[in-house]
Amino acid sequence: MMTVNNITISKTTSKKEKPDQTQLGFGQYFTDHMFILDYTEGKGWHDPRIVPYQPITLEPSAMIFHYGQTVFEGMKAYLSEDGDIHLFRPEKNIQRLNRSNDRMRIPEVDETLALQAIKELVKVDADWVPSEPGTSLYIRPYIISTEPFLGVAPSKHYKFMVILSPVGAYYKEGINPVKIAVENEFVRAVKGGTGEAKTAGNYASSLKAQALVASQGYAQVMWLDGIEKKYIEEVGSMNVFFKIDGEVVTPELNGSILEGVTRNSVMELLKHWGITVTERKITVEEIFEAHKNGKLEEAFGSGTAAVISPIGTLAWDGKEIVINDSKTGEVSKKLYDTLTNIQYGKETDVFDWIVKLER
Amino acid sequence: MMTVNNITISKTTSKKEKPDQTQLGFGQYFTDHMFILDYTEGKGWHDPRIVPYQPITLEPSAMIFHYGQTVFEGMKAYLSEDGDIHLFRPEKNIQRLNRSNDRMRIPEVDETLALQAIKELVKVDADWVPSEPGTSLYIRPYIISTEPFLGVAPSKHYKFMVILSPVGAYYKEGINPVKIAVENEFVRAVKGGTGEAKTAGNYASSLKAQALVASQGYAQVMWLDGIEKKYIEEVGSMNVFFKIDGEVVTPELNGSILEGVTRNSVMELLKHWGITVTERKITVEEIFEAHKNGKLEEAFGSGTAAVISPIGTLAWDGKEIVINDSKTGEVSKKLYDTLTNIQYGKETDVFDWIVKLER
Repeated sequence: MMTVNNITISKTTSKKEKPDQTQLGFGQYFTDHMFILDYTEGKGWHDPRIVPYQPITLEPSAMIFHYGQTVFEGMKAYLSEDGDIHLFRPEKNIQRLNRSNDRMRIPEVDETLALQAIKELVKVDADWVPSEPGTSLYIRPYIISTEPFLGVAPSKHYKFMVILSPVGAYYKEGINPVKIAVENEFVRAVKGGTGEAKTAGNYASSLKAQALVASQGYAQVMWLDGIEKKYIEEVGSMNVFFKIDGEVVTPELNGSILEGVTRNSVMELLKHWGITVTERKITVEEIFEAHKNGKLEEAFGSGTAAVISPIGTLAWDGKEIVINDSKTGEVSKKLYDTLTNIQYGKETDVFDWIVKLER
Repeated sequence: MMTVNNITISKTTSKKEKPDQTQLGFGQYFTDHMFILDYTEGKGWHDPRIVPYQPITLEPSAMIFHYGQTVFEGMKAYLSEDGDIHLFRPEKNIQRLNRSNDRMRIPEVDETLALQAIKELVKVDADWVPSEPGTSLYIRPYIISTEPFLGVAPSKHYKFMVILSPVGAYYKEGINPVKIAVENEFVRAVKGGTGEAKTAGNYASSLKAQALVASQGYAQVMWLDGIEKKYIEEVGSMNVFFKIDGEVVTPELNGSILEGVTRNSVMELLKHWGITVTERKITVEEIFEAHKNGKLEEAFGSGTAAVISPIGTLAWDGKEIVINDSKTGEVSKKLYDTLTNIQYGKETDVFDWIVKLER
């Protein structure tokens, strides 16, 4: 056992066999270690530690099983061409974790410690960062409420944990447009709800709509606002952008949209390239109208998993439009290439987005 | 080990000491046994069993910790004056559990088995049903998603469990009106969301608003609809009723309101007594207007925990009204007395609501 930056590290004595890097998929394999930090009311967050990856044992009355007071984050570590390990804007994820915590009444986490924990854990499991093209090590920080109590109230005990999962390339045969269906019945989130927090309930509520569109041959749902069912909010669990008549637009943050780190990076890059990008309300009607007038040039989702996911077909209310001949648009492609090149260290990181792990 | 109705029963060898019945509170103590039923894709629900109350061990990647695919129920067992144990309309809770399952994409549970499990478990822990006035044995059935996988998709593994907690009298000094504040900023649920399902996310999202009104001296939040912020939906985690000019009204079920078993029982009783009860849209403005005109006679919440909770004060938008001089109204009192009398076997169960456990 050793201690680094106040984090005690207990290494495993029996390392697991690594999975085939060409068959990783997403979120199926987990590394040899995990990070744990406990919270007790009156004592605060305590005992940061890296331990062998192991099951969690909780009372059946632990609040996480009943009232869903929980938040999570998702980011990736990339193996660069010269063998370094890169994190992509991890501080943004940790800041968002604390914004989610505030909405869900979970005590704030020390951001310096959280970043340190992620860095140390990835270093301990550095041999798990895969090297095949497009692969990466997915990082899942999350907080669960663990008090054994059935009252509906904020928990007095929590666990902040980080687990790591080597994941495959999102696009096995290159970036590829998908079919998306606008959802008119089910709602992901509404103003005053928890849409801007990265919390379990938002994902649980999406499963039924997702299953329905999947059965009709669509890859993902496009969510509309819960109030007027007019304004576009997100696509699946990604933010969404449209290029109309040379300009790029994306739904403005309104309290029910998750503020994506990739979303922010896309906007920075577009501005850097001199392309106008505007955050505003966007109706689905406007998108169909722009398509009719030949002005809808590109549409794409942005998120940690896919980076950029072009939308080739959009269905709404019995109508279906094909965007850019269902080909990946120029801007979509350039964003995807630039972001992944920065992540894998193939292109100069002019924005200082990469956090390199010293080994 | 023995088997009853296909449920294997393994009894504990070390029974816990029972808590002081005058200090039970809510959801703090748990009995000696629990029920578990597993689900595996392809195999269905299997291995129904009653085992000693024990911690649950799950992988850190178990889906319940990340995406909140979970449902629960709440009901009570009452010790009647002649020593019988009564359940109150348990089949209604089990039917609702399956409606929640449908919304959350959790496989349906066999309702006969679920009721059998609850009955057998309560029988095994029959000595835990408390006898002090107003006390009861709270029954918490719940289902959690347990597949170790980080993809956003319905889980392939679940656990259906039932745990029991002896709980104290809700009103220590008799039924008592509370102060309630109408919530204008935060939203519990919206049409198209998960409001009509009994699922964790609805409760997690309520914590912030609840904490804010509590800091202003109010007991609970009155939730408005998420779309127009005009229509009354629920109070805290109860349904709500108003008596206006001799008639009783309650918000109509609209997809974002939980269909309470007590709500249904209140309506049945009112009809039985010849009091008109109408389910319809109710604006908070209408309630304040009725108060101004001297026509708002009573207001109360209904739920398993409190049965009936009279509203003495209602705050909205800087205004505060006092209802019925902040005293428990006649109808509220009669409903409370009748429901609790039926539950504890002090009054004839004309509706056949009670399920008596044979011992």
